Amino acid sequence: MSAPGPIDHRDAIPAVRAVFDDIKRTRRVEDVNNFWKYLAHDPALLARTWASVKEVMAPGALDPLTKEMVYLAVSVTNGCGYCIASHTAAARKAGMSEAMFGELMAVVGMANETNRLANGYRVPIDPAFE
Amino acid sequence: MSAPGPIDHRDAIPAVRAVFDDIKRTRRVEDVNNFWKYLAHDPALLARTWASVKEVMAPGALDPLTKEMVYLAVSVTNGCGYCIASHTAAARKAGMSEAMFGELMAVVGMANETNRLANGYRVPIDPAFE
Amino acid sequence: MSAPGPIDHRDAIPAVRAVFDDIKRTRRVEDVNNFWKYLAHDPALLARTWASVKEVMAPGALDPLTKEMVYLAVSVTNGCGYCIASHTAAARKAGMSEAMFGELMAVVGMANETNRLANGYRVPIDPAFE
Amino acid sequence: MSAPGPIDHRDAIPAVRAVFDDIKRTRRVEDVNNFWKYLAHDPALLARTWASVKEVMAPGALDPLTKEMVYLAVSVTNGCGYCIASHTAAARKAGMSEAMFGELMAVVGMANETNRLANGYRVPIDPAFE
Amino acid sequence: MSAPGPIDHRDAIPAVRAVFDDIKRTRRVEDVNNFWKYLAHDPALLARTWASVKEVMAPGALDPLTKEMVYLAVSVTNGCGYCIASHTAAARKAGMSEAMFGELMAVVGMANETNRLANGYRVPIDPAFE
Amino acid sequence: MSAPGPIDHRDAIPAVRAVFDDIKRTRRVEDVNNFWKYLAHDPALLARTWASVKEVMAPGALDPLTKEMVYLAVSVTNGCGYCIASHTAAARKAGMSEAMFGELMAVVGMANETNRLANGYRVPIDPAFE
Repeated sequence: MSAPGPIDHRDAIPAVRAVFDDIKRTRRVEDVNNFWKYLAHDPALLARTWASVKEVMAPGALDPLTKEMVYLAVSVTNGCGYCIASHTAAARKAGMSEAMFGELMAVVGMANETNRLANGYRVPIDPAFE
Repeated sequence: MSAPGPIDHRDAIPAVRAVFDDIKRTRRVEDVNNFWKYLAHDPALLARTWASVKEVMAPGALDPLTKEMVYLAVSVTNGCGYCIASHTAAARKAGMSEAMFGELMAVVGMANETNRLANGYRVPIDPAFE
Repeated sequence: MSAPGPIDHRDAIPAVRAVFDDIKRTRRVEDVNNFWKYLAHDPALLARTWASVKEVMAPGALDPLTKEMVYLAVSVTNGCGYCIASHTAAARKAGMSEAMFGELMAVVGMANETNRLANGYRVPIDPAFE
Repeated sequence: MSAPGPIDHRDAIPAVRAVFDDIKRTRRVEDVNNFWKYLAHDPALLARTWASVKEVMAPGALDPLTKEMVYLAVSVTNGCGYCIASHTAAARKAGMSEAMFGELMAVVGMANETNRLANGYRVPIDPAFE
Repeated sequence: MSAPGPIDHRDAIPAVRAVFDDIKRTRRVEDVNNFWKYLAHDPALLARTWASVKEVMAPGALDPLTKEMVYLAVSVTNGCGYCIASHTAAARKAGMSEAMFGELMAVVGMANETNRLANGYRVPIDPAFE
Repeated sequence: MSAPGPIDHRDAIPAVRAVFDDIKRTRRVEDVNNFWKYLAHDPALLARTWASVKEVMAPGALDPLTKEMVYLAVSVTNGCGYCIASHTAAARKAGMSEAMFGELMAVVGMANETNRLANGYRVPIDPAFE
């Protein structure tokens, strides 16, 4: 009945190893973090999730740092402890300074506050925003 | 029992007018949007919220466009219809292109998905992220 | 494929009518609001929900106004449009003044903000709070 | 100021014991889990919650396994750590296989993602869905 | 500054048309619903999201009806209006009866309630659930 | 890469010490709790947040106990572990009895349940509530 643990590279089937290897190559890390070792229980989910993350987080119209900070903003809003820890680390690695982190949290806090003020005061959308 | 409506500049008390005028000056807009016209029912809340928003959204370690996109990411995560409409407009005004919007949504969607995968698989935080 | 509509008293089965009548008696209203007319599609759910609401919202260690304001605080946090509208009306009927509503929204907004600051800064629980 | 602990069967008042005994009988377990031992601080809440859970989770138009998986899906979406742990165990006991768990998480993750895409793109409801 | 509208098949670029055609074929529908017509503003997001949805919602260890009901449970928990409307329709098409819908809502409601009771009473996870 | 720890009074810059001292004076406590020691990493955020909390939580149209219980209701709904612990302690200090806590949790649970029933049944707002 206990929760299944992480699947390490040495215990993984080839399809999982291939994903792990691509994560390590793409991110230039020595090992994948726990998130991937747990998703490895479902190789199809692992492969699909990694393919999407890789595509979504690649540099494009938005740079990787901005994307990591947005990821962190969502995780903080949802209160996902694991995601907050891992994406804080990722955003720092991508260049987030202490000052940027402070301002990011200030915006996230403010948005969560004013979202509820708009809800509570039942503010109708301005025609200009339609 | 019906919901109170917006308070327009001409009907506002001086303390409210002063906030409205500062919003118009700071944002270079001809009128304030509905959010502020509803908060005007509580002049102390209006003044405090505007002072905080003005300070938080000013350029700093993060530029205004990044801040607006983070605001939008939070609003989309929370499902606040008014806030999505108003901050999409604000982010566009600050320079968000159609391509940036698309990537922003992709990151927000992905973060909301992987937040739940981390929850569901009960992934423990890696020592490196502590 | 379209959504089922409300079930009015005259079209309701006896078990539903009995609940409707008890709601009208308890709340001293001439008709039940839409929430109950929709739940009436599932008479067991209707009866169970009303029995729980009746018991939970009755005066006890907390007075009805406090309970209605808490109900509204939760609804605003969750962004449930129907619930915000109906519980704002209920709180007003129970005695919530305009000033009380303003302070309630201020607390709800502030709590939603600091909840995220605590998440984002990963603040550990003080031993005194354990 | 510290948090109240669990109330065990031997320390419980008769009304609480009666609920504990009914939970044990209904679920064929030797002891109730912590959730009930904490709710026992409020015997009325305990009794009402158990009565509702017992009725809602009984086999009906939906089988118990489906109900437990839906319960888990909600808990994962809300990020309730206790509920995820307890309802993962309950779903497994009701027959959820590892493959079913993986697909369940995939659906939950996808729904959380597309919910935000629909929010962000402000998609209007199709007439056919009204 | 106004929100972009839906992209119809006749106005779509070939890459978008190909996705639309696959959706119509897979679901045996005459036209795609609004969700896809809005995502079409970002062809990469559209293609990736459809590929994932198609894979995740296909019959597997869980049948399509169960998957649709789980999707609906998440959407109701998050309060996504569009998603509730579209996945209620999809679940009905997959065989959800009125009785099944009623029980589904009852479980979703109960789970959202007990999630908060577990939070509020700060219930520690039972060793058996670890 | 590890998370920054708390900043204690003796290690704080004067601007932070001034806020800490005002918190201690206002609340008549010997030390500030962890929340403030972590926000101290961003002195502007610390000062702004404390100024707002001090103003919002002061007695007004609502008494401090009611405000603390609303704060707790929001924190429980959001599942913020730190906030639940700290505001349960604060509400108790402000006079919340065990019976009041039990009823508060019952209302919070019920509101979270009926919020989703209103969502799922897509209940339209009654004209009287508009």
